[in-house]
Amino acid sequence: MSKNRLEAFSDGVLAIIITIMVLELKVPHAVEQVSHTAGLADLKPLLPVFLSYVLSFIYLSIYWNNHHHMFHATKHVTGGILWANLHLLFWLSLFPFTTAWVGENHPAPTPAAVYGFVLLMAAIAYYILQRTIVAQQGRDSLLAAAIGKDWKGKLSPVCYLAAIPLAFVSVWISVGLYVFVAFLWLVPDRRIERVLVKRQAE
Amino acid sequence: MSKNRLEAFSDGVLAIIITIMVLELKVPHAVEQVSHTAGLADLKPLLPVFLSYVLSFIYLSIYWNNHHHMFHATKHVTGGILWANLHLLFWLSLFPFTTAWVGENHPAPTPAAVYGFVLLMAAIAYYILQRTIVAQQGRDSLLAAAIGKDWKGKLSPVCYLAAIPLAFVSVWISVGLYVFVAFLWLVPDRRIERVLVKRQAE
Amino acid sequence: MSKNRLEAFSDGVLAIIITIMVLELKVPHAVEQVSHTAGLADLKPLLPVFLSYVLSFIYLSIYWNNHHHMFHATKHVTGGILWANLHLLFWLSLFPFTTAWVGENHPAPTPAAVYGFVLLMAAIAYYILQRTIVAQQGRDSLLAAAIGKDWKGKLSPVCYLAAIPLAFVSVWISVGLYVFVAFLWLVPDRRIERVLVKRQAE
Amino acid sequence: MSKNRLEAFSDGVLAIIITIMVLELKVPHAVEQVSHTAGLADLKPLLPVFLSYVLSFIYLSIYWNNHHHMFHATKHVTGGILWANLHLLFWLSLFPFTTAWVGENHPAPTPAAVYGFVLLMAAIAYYILQRTIVAQQGRDSLLAAAIGKDWKGKLSPVCYLAAIPLAFVSVWISVGLYVFVAFLWLVPDRRIERVLVKRQAE
Repeated sequence: MSKNRLEAFSDGVLAIIITIMVLELKVPHAVEQVSHTAGLADLKPLLPVFLSYVLSFIYLSIYWNNHHHMFHATKHVTGGILWANLHLLFWLSLFPFTTAWVGENHPAPTPAAVYGFVLLMAAIAYYILQRTIVAQQGRDSLLAAAIGKDWKGKLSPVCYLAAIPLAFVSVWISVGLYVFVAFLWLVPDRRIERVLVKRQAE
Repeated sequence: MSKNRLEAFSDGVLAIIITIMVLELKVPHAVEQVSHTAGLADLKPLLPVFLSYVLSFIYLSIYWNNHHHMFHATKHVTGGILWANLHLLFWLSLFPFTTAWVGENHPAPTPAAVYGFVLLMAAIAYYILQRTIVAQQGRDSLLAAAIGKDWKGKLSPVCYLAAIPLAFVSVWISVGLYVFVAFLWLVPDRRIERVLVKRQAE
Repeated sequence: MSKNRLEAFSDGVLAIIITIMVLELKVPHAVEQVSHTAGLADLKPLLPVFLSYVLSFIYLSIYWNNHHHMFHATKHVTGGILWANLHLLFWLSLFPFTTAWVGENHPAPTPAAVYGFVLLMAAIAYYILQRTIVAQQGRDSLLAAAIGKDWKGKLSPVCYLAAIPLAFVSVWISVGLYVFVAFLWLVPDRRIERVLVKRQAE
Repeated sequence: MSKNRLEAFSDGVLAIIITIMVLELKVPHAVEQVSHTAGLADLKPLLPVFLSYVLSFIYLSIYWNNHHHMFHATKHVTGGILWANLHLLFWLSLFPFTTAWVGENHPAPTPAAVYGFVLLMAAIAYYILQRTIVAQQGRDSLLAAAIGKDWKGKLSPVCYLAAIPLAFVSVWISVGLYVFVAFLWLVPDRRIERVLVKRQAE
């Protein structure tokens, strides 16, 4: 079975998720502006919504990037891989909701914790998908070699797990953890590229 | 005529349907929270909307999966197939509406019945599409062999048909039937894969 | 220049237009249902919105189908074709607006006339796109032969043009004309398929 | 690494951005029409929203067109190019917000200035993407030759930069500058096509 349609469908869903998040950036409407002209002050209450949008945009970009790399190193697609991929897309599809909730209620602890919970579930879904592909490709496959020890993939869920209760201590700690994990992954993941080059050299 | 664009367009429509459903998960807004901080209690009224989203997500995933398999076994696309496919997409496009209606009015019987009606029409549209493709591919084709007796495809509309009047007896019976059919299909449909492997062996 | 990306982008835009139209089918909300359970009566005011959705879904399906056939018979894409295609997509992107307006204000004449105006502009944009492609492909090309006398393409804008003033006589006449043109095109356009088969036989 | 998925994802995001902008063209609702039939007068307050939609549609079309040409002349995609592309998509994703804000508050200076700011950031992001690709393809590459002196790419951000403070003098000056730059790019960019033809001739 070809992987093209799985990639196309995932690209579609990710593109839509990333774009509908911006719909939560609601334009301050005329009704609220009876007495004044629209100015920068109208944008101020949107700031936490905007920042949570930026963070989620980065997270979804990271997922798209890693998904891209992972399937680049995948040859065949099975029914199990299809479903593991849909499971990942399900959790990612909740990002617009948690992003808007955390943005509109900053600095309330519960939305920040729920945001972390969805991040955690998406990380677990990604891990399951990776396991499913490696199981099908074999331990000696390009992907297995490329993933290696996968310390980022192991550290991230630990951070999310810690951020959930810590949100009730201080929202800033949990937000700090989410930002930290995002930066961790922003450093481009050259593992697969590196292994590819190595194997071609051998 | 190539099937690539039909697949790409269907993927696009399905990806959007699946994703805009999540827009019905409306963020509990600040106005309603004058006297308290946003907490898990705010999510409680969203629970039926969330669960109906999960169910519809699974249904649309099943449709995408089966659509993927069916067109994998299809060689040529005719005008009739194009229109049968658009007919299927039409009924699937009503999922976000019925999902939101059933979720927001739980446990009202009419929305549950209408949800079943749209499921029924989508199942019929899928059946017509399958017939159209088999008619064009021939009875000895890979697809015809793969579909076989198609007991799932025959049992599902019967369940939906039963669920519509039963919603007025108890919403739980009809919801139970919808969940039952979803689980029926979640068991991966290996028919096409199996037949493919068999034919290659011969 | 390859036509793949133009097709993919057009598919994306058409898929989204067709799907966001359904967002105008607004779920009757709990607030309005204080005193009663959600029932079929709640759907009644949605009927004109639903019917206008069905009509626009059919129109967009026809456009997608014809677009599919036209580019199937196109070899090269120029800057002029890109822009003529974007011009068509612009007018099609106004369908969700006019569809919702006509549906929510049935049977007001102005929305019905504006609906026809956007249909007319889309038909003109399609005609320009067709001319641009034929000019580039040459008068002896497959596409030019397939289009032939193009009586449907010539009759449709005349109907729209008539429907605009007639909406102020009776909305039903103009709606009848829109339905008539849609059925005209629903009869599958086998011209290109036929010419293709003929040329292969020669 | 193949560029197909990057193109497909970018097409998806651009198609969605261009289409959700139209959601801001809000249908004048029944509530406001208690005492009269829906007429053309109801569309009048939508005119600035419509015109800002047209302008942004043209801008996004230009970006899609240039993106199409640029990647047509690109062979390999690196991690750096992926991220530079996502950065561009981020700024483009803010177009629906600024378009709606400027349209609903015409002629307020701040929204017009913020509209220009997002145009400026998108232009800078496009420039960074172009630089990243040229750096990877080499100074003698097709793309580098095609871009040439890139006077349009250099003049545009200067215009946006001027339009931001000038919005506070007169909104019309800054709107005029945005329209001027759009027309500048509408003249089809034949540079890449020209160089391609030249090289094939050599």
